[in-house]
Amino acid sequence: MAQSFSYPSDKTGLPPGSLVHVGRMPAEAGRVTLISFNEDHAAEHPVASINDIDRHRAAGTNLWIHCEGLDLIEFLGAVGLRFAIHPLVLEDILNTHQRPKFEVDEDYLFIVLKTLRCDQSMAVHHEQISLVVFGDVLFTFREQTDELFDALRQRLTAPKGRLRSLGTDYLACMLMDTVVDNYFTVADTIEEAIEAAETTLLDRPQPATFAAIQQLKRELIFIRKAVMPLREMLLAIQRSDSPIIQDRTQPYFRDVFDHVLRVIDTIDAYRDLLNGVLDIYLSSVSNRMNEIMKVLTVFATIFIPLTFIAGVYGMNFDYMPELRWRWSYPILWGLFLLIPAILLTLFRKKRWL
Amino acid sequence: MAQSFSYPSDKTGLPPGSLVHVGRMPAEAGRVTLISFNEDHAAEHPVASINDIDRHRAAGTNLWIHCEGLDLIEFLGAVGLRFAIHPLVLEDILNTHQRPKFEVDEDYLFIVLKTLRCDQSMAVHHEQISLVVFGDVLFTFREQTDELFDALRQRLTAPKGRLRSLGTDYLACMLMDTVVDNYFTVADTIEEAIEAAETTLLDRPQPATFAAIQQLKRELIFIRKAVMPLREMLLAIQRSDSPIIQDRTQPYFRDVFDHVLRVIDTIDAYRDLLNGVLDIYLSSVSNRMNEIMKVLTVFATIFIPLTFIAGVYGMNFDYMPELRWRWSYPILWGLFLLIPAILLTLFRKKRWL
Amino acid sequence: MAQSFSYPSDKTGLPPGSLVHVGRMPAEAGRVTLISFNEDHAAEHPVASINDIDRHRAAGTNLWIHCEGLDLIEFLGAVGLRFAIHPLVLEDILNTHQRPKFEVDEDYLFIVLKTLRCDQSMAVHHEQISLVVFGDVLFTFREQTDELFDALRQRLTAPKGRLRSLGTDYLACMLMDTVVDNYFTVADTIEEAIEAAETTLLDRPQPATFAAIQQLKRELIFIRKAVMPLREMLLAIQRSDSPIIQDRTQPYFRDVFDHVLRVIDTIDAYRDLLNGVLDIYLSSVSNRMNEIMKVLTVFATIFIPLTFIAGVYGMNFDYMPELRWRWSYPILWGLFLLIPAILLTLFRKKRWL
Amino acid sequence: MAQSFSYPSDKTGLPPGSLVHVGRMPAEAGRVTLISFNEDHAAEHPVASINDIDRHRAAGTNLWIHCEGLDLIEFLGAVGLRFAIHPLVLEDILNTHQRPKFEVDEDYLFIVLKTLRCDQSMAVHHEQISLVVFGDVLFTFREQTDELFDALRQRLTAPKGRLRSLGTDYLACMLMDTVVDNYFTVADTIEEAIEAAETTLLDRPQPATFAAIQQLKRELIFIRKAVMPLREMLLAIQRSDSPIIQDRTQPYFRDVFDHVLRVIDTIDAYRDLLNGVLDIYLSSVSNRMNEIMKVLTVFATIFIPLTFIAGVYGMNFDYMPELRWRWSYPILWGLFLLIPAILLTLFRKKRWL
Amino acid sequence: MAQSFSYPSDKTGLPPGSLVHVGRMPAEAGRVTLISFNEDHAAEHPVASINDIDRHRAAGTNLWIHCEGLDLIEFLGAVGLRFAIHPLVLEDILNTHQRPKFEVDEDYLFIVLKTLRCDQSMAVHHEQISLVVFGDVLFTFREQTDELFDALRQRLTAPKGRLRSLGTDYLACMLMDTVVDNYFTVADTIEEAIEAAETTLLDRPQPATFAAIQQLKRELIFIRKAVMPLREMLLAIQRSDSPIIQDRTQPYFRDVFDHVLRVIDTIDAYRDLLNGVLDIYLSSVSNRMNEIMKVLTVFATIFIPLTFIAGVYGMNFDYMPELRWRWSYPILWGLFLLIPAILLTLFRKKRWL
Repeated sequence: MAQSFSYPSDKTGLPPGSLVHVGRMPAEAGRVTLISFNEDHAAEHPVASINDIDRHRAAGTNLWIHCEGLDLIEFLGAVGLRFAIHPLVLEDILNTHQRPKFEVDEDYLFIVLKTLRCDQSMAVHHEQISLVVFGDVLFTFREQTDELFDALRQRLTAPKGRLRSLGTDYLACMLMDTVVDNYFTVADTIEEAIEAAETTLLDRPQPATFAAIQQLKRELIFIRKAVMPLREMLLAIQRSDSPIIQDRTQPYFRDVFDHVLRVIDTIDAYRDLLNGVLDIYLSSVSNRMNEIMKVLTVFATIFIPLTFIAGVYGMNFDYMPELRWRWSYPILWGLFLLIPAILLTLFRKKRWL
Repeated sequence: MAQSFSYPSDKTGLPPGSLVHVGRMPAEAGRVTLISFNEDHAAEHPVASINDIDRHRAAGTNLWIHCEGLDLIEFLGAVGLRFAIHPLVLEDILNTHQRPKFEVDEDYLFIVLKTLRCDQSMAVHHEQISLVVFGDVLFTFREQTDELFDALRQRLTAPKGRLRSLGTDYLACMLMDTVVDNYFTVADTIEEAIEAAETTLLDRPQPATFAAIQQLKRELIFIRKAVMPLREMLLAIQRSDSPIIQDRTQPYFRDVFDHVLRVIDTIDAYRDLLNGVLDIYLSSVSNRMNEIMKVLTVFATIFIPLTFIAGVYGMNFDYMPELRWRWSYPILWGLFLLIPAILLTLFRKKRWL
Repeated sequence: MAQSFSYPSDKTGLPPGSLVHVGRMPAEAGRVTLISFNEDHAAEHPVASINDIDRHRAAGTNLWIHCEGLDLIEFLGAVGLRFAIHPLVLEDILNTHQRPKFEVDEDYLFIVLKTLRCDQSMAVHHEQISLVVFGDVLFTFREQTDELFDALRQRLTAPKGRLRSLGTDYLACMLMDTVVDNYFTVADTIEEAIEAAETTLLDRPQPATFAAIQQLKRELIFIRKAVMPLREMLLAIQRSDSPIIQDRTQPYFRDVFDHVLRVIDTIDAYRDLLNGVLDIYLSSVSNRMNEIMKVLTVFATIFIPLTFIAGVYGMNFDYMPELRWRWSYPILWGLFLLIPAILLTLFRKKRWL
Repeated sequence: MAQSFSYPSDKTGLPPGSLVHVGRMPAEAGRVTLISFNEDHAAEHPVASINDIDRHRAAGTNLWIHCEGLDLIEFLGAVGLRFAIHPLVLEDILNTHQRPKFEVDEDYLFIVLKTLRCDQSMAVHHEQISLVVFGDVLFTFREQTDELFDALRQRLTAPKGRLRSLGTDYLACMLMDTVVDNYFTVADTIEEAIEAAETTLLDRPQPATFAAIQQLKRELIFIRKAVMPLREMLLAIQRSDSPIIQDRTQPYFRDVFDHVLRVIDTIDAYRDLLNGVLDIYLSSVSNRMNEIMKVLTVFATIFIPLTFIAGVYGMNFDYMPELRWRWSYPILWGLFLLIPAILLTLFRKKRWL
Repeated sequence: MAQSFSYPSDKTGLPPGSLVHVGRMPAEAGRVTLISFNEDHAAEHPVASINDIDRHRAAGTNLWIHCEGLDLIEFLGAVGLRFAIHPLVLEDILNTHQRPKFEVDEDYLFIVLKTLRCDQSMAVHHEQISLVVFGDVLFTFREQTDELFDALRQRLTAPKGRLRSLGTDYLACMLMDTVVDNYFTVADTIEEAIEAAETTLLDRPQPATFAAIQQLKRELIFIRKAVMPLREMLLAIQRSDSPIIQDRTQPYFRDVFDHVLRVIDTIDAYRDLLNGVLDIYLSSVSNRMNEIMKVLTVFATIFIPLTFIAGVYGMNFDYMPELRWRWSYPILWGLFLLIPAILLTLFRKKRWL
């Protein structure tokens, strides 16, 4: 099993709100980057301590604070205190086994997402991304460091774009959009794998391909589990009356919602496809069985009577007049040819051949 | 796979609202036609630039602007500016992988539909049609050029009809009606294919027919995916309080809604039918297997004992008194006839024959 | 396929509201009957033209106008004009491929129902019945002429009954009740067919019975499709605040609703039953297969070793001392009896016999 | 089929509200008992006519009128008139093919329930119980006479208990509680039958047990159909604002509701269990098939080559040098032992043995 | 069956509210512990009678009264009287076959939970925990005595923690959290069992593993039945406006709710996994069957013709010229090698080998 469907229960007994990282420990150390931006300018700074954030806060300026690697427990604690984030939220950020969810607090929104990545062996890996959205500050927390948000970062720091002028809610929406668009990439990989499996099956049905298809089905269950809660979540965002989400951002959330619906449609279609492929496989297996049985039956039913006849004239009775006749043997050979001919005609008539 | 269930993710990383055409590039160049109509007259004009539209706008006159071929990105951009259409809507028009949907803006309605077409090999192709409905202007955007809306165009330009007197909302409703009626044509083709497959199966079950039925099942999944969102969409239209949809047009939308329900009923019935056909196929395959096994068993069980007996009297022991007896051989022949007779009677009693 | 699951799409391109009859053309010409009734009297009159209706309208008198055969397009057009019925309603009456539905207009209610009839070959046929209910006039439109409503007509013209005193809404309710009660008759026929199929299957499983059960399943899909919309429809009637439906009639509609729920329960139970019967069939088929294989295996495994031994002593080697021994042959016969005895004991122990 | 899933349609054509008993005619004649009770006393009286009821009505006294046997049509008619019960309710009482339901009238509540009884052959029988609950009178109508409510009757007539002090609504609730508790008894019987079937299956899979399990599945369908409507019914009772149901009785209805949920959970769990048992059966059948095939294959593949070799040296060619050699025969016996040894090793390696 | 899906119906006929313990009788006698706590201190006391509770009640002090073992019927009766707990609640506490539920009374909340425990043979056992939550007193009732709540008890009596400062509603929430976290432990055990079963199956498919997987499926049904009602229950708690649940506690209940959703997701994923594993098993069984059939067919089809030829030349006809030829025998041996070579090539071409 490439991924665990259960979640560790190491925290049983601990009080909720304890800041302990539950999940895979990332290899590299954590890193925090801050991008301050408004309509006029945008600049990226590394962040070493909570004070670096304070220094950049200013009226009319938005901050995107991007934390990679979840071993920054101390830093997170400081952020939690300074920004008055609920201990349970901090705990959810560190425990990377959350369901995707959306929570509205008085001062901020809390959003949990899952990114998906498909490796060469078609195993799907997921990573948790947590967003805490204040009116002028957006925190993102990731387990790993990769190039997923690089395009977005470039658009933000590039000269004047919509991204810079629309605030933290729009930026959060764009982050979600990037994550959801990424699902389509995974879906494409899955589709190619399905087509490959299908071709192999029709060409040469093998148990290994059967197992590969079962593996794909399992991956789909896994992806569906990550994507399904997004539907409710985006509905909740659209219905939310939090002042942090501005009216002009709502169409973009609706757009992400449409994408999520399309991903779900696609996954469901894949599942149906896979079931069809499995049916074809099973049917072709039972068909081969039939073929094999037919050959066996034709051989056996043709030769069994002939062998019997040969056996009869191999008997050693003193009184077997046919044995003495001149034409017995040639006539018998005629019979040896006639019987199969009759049986084959019969089988052909029954459409066995 | 005739169609892709996934959608390209080429746009990952681009800002939403970028006007890039995502979909199949149509072979021919785009073409824009404008039909200005009111109760008294109707006239069709080609449109070369946005100014041509301005020239025909007049109080008491409705415009239907029909754009075929989605390589008119520049033109679309101009339309978007002049008519204040949201960038996300323009993007959705160009990205032809939308789900069918209905969106209400202050000034216009945005409707996305899918037309279906069934080619000779029973593969179903779809095309996206986008409608932007203003109070006095209706835009339609299509990927391809064909005769689907020709009947409607003729009714519009023909002397005085209801179509001309009822406004752009009624025209939009009729366009949807045409698209939905077209689904019935596709459904008819599918039904014929099901019946053909059924006849072939009952006559001579073959793996190829099995694959054909699986293909039909897949097409049904595909059609269902295109049609299902129409149900919600038409419910939303009926519940919408947009001033663009007039009260007297609502019964016609309800009519389209009824048609959509009927299409869905029909598709669901087809799916059940196909499952029944597959069950019959699998049962008939397993039945043939039984038949083959029965023949093999009858032949083997009859001849195996006889061959054994013949083998016994082919042994070369010095002391085998039967070999010397006068009537041994005829008696044995009697046995060779008696044993099969007994076995056949037994099998008949067990209803194997 | 006795019935078509799809509906003709001959009307594609025609404007909605065009009065063209879509459906099976009835053999006989149409006929219109009018029954005028109030608490005191009831009389039946034939109707030749729309004027005959006008002549019988009077305060305190209700009219039931029963139209059989849908080739009365001209008459229907006249009715539509005189009674201000919406063109789409007229179209739905003529196009007999409607889903059952209930629509409330300001002046009238429009109800579409399906009657079911089961012929000898267990094929289910359906017919559309449309009701247009005004405060004092009830129109019924049928495709065919049969005795379905005769009992109701007799109760209406019989001396003083509740039917006459309660108005057109109660009469419409009774018409629906008659149609729904008729579903039970069809359900009874299906149940008998299921029981017959079950008995045949347990007695002598045959592919033909399998096909018959599949046919029954298909009929159930068909019936369900006709009955299911009635549930929503009757809920809508109960929730409707149209003044045409009087409070005292509501309990009777609730009664019809209960009957519809019972029909649906019954159909669902039948479907489960049929699936159980199919499972039994498939299991018994695979069981027969097992039986056949067992017999083959027993025969083959018993005689194959014996035949081998006989073959050994049929060899012609010069040096085979056993051939010369006095007791070889009897001992061998002992072996020929012992080996089967051992094998049979073994098989019995393994519970193969 | 022990029970009919359909309901007779003998009443088709009759006006609703006609008092005709539809159902099994009970063997014994009907009997009516009246228990008058209040906090201070309770007394049981037989009832011969409607006047006996009138005589016992008194302020501060509640009546429970228990009617067993539904051939009391005349009595029921008199009750209907005296207590102003709607004709449709009277009809539903007599027609014992109702779905369980709850109806609120201005003056009374109407409740229909089904009791279940499981006979020795595991067939489930049901009986309809109708309750008409007035503020001070409770009518119960049953088809049969048995001891189901005897415990309740004893508690009512026993010295001072909660049952006597809480009114007709509480009594009705207790009657429902008794009926629902009875479902658990039936469920226990089913569970025992499932366990028995399971043991038999694992011990010695047989078609008869398969049929028995299918029968149990059918019974579960039947029970579910009787129990499911109780859920909605009890929800409706809890939401109802009828003055007949007092606030202090609501917790008891909620209690019955909990029991119903538990029964439904239990039935669903049984269904899953049965499906698991069937899967085990089918898998064990296919396993036996495999076993049989393996034995056949081992025997056949071992002896077929040996028989061939024996056949070779049984040929009568003049020139067959081996026949003359001294060690041919012993060497061949070596071969006859070696070949099986090799094959058996091979099969063991392939894990066939 | 390790657990009973049905519930005893021993109480049929008894009035509701009778205090009789329905469930497994615990081995040890019951024990009651009381922890009085407020922000400043916490102390644990044994409780012998109801008076011990009275002695510790004080303004500003909360009590947690933990009752282990349900043979304290007398004590429970006293508690019920003193704290005005509804008789039905007391009954539900003693009858340990309740569904998990949440009930709001004016003065207290009543919560029923199920804990799960998985023994070595993978059988899942459950125990009922009932909570009665007053503003300042929390009662917990358990059937058994184990260390489940020990961690919580230590946190409560440890110097100053959130647990002590937040009241009985928060303590109840933490108890629920502990129970739900425990489900993850059970889920982990199940996951390990699934992986073990999977490995065994792929390595060496055996009926015993099949039965083990069916057993796991059954356990999942059982767990699901215990967990599912928690979802509604926690939704009800979140929607409840009881003053006992303070606003600051709600986030913690939402946290438990999230955990419950995750458990349900996990269980559903396991079910899908198990179905996949079963499919792989069945497919591999049918694959082995194919393998066996192939070997049989290859052996039989190769040797049957050869044996026939050998039989022919074992016949004893006087006139069989080949018998005299010098090269007959070697040529025949050539044939004996050629025929298998041809057949094997053919089979390899058909991909049987």
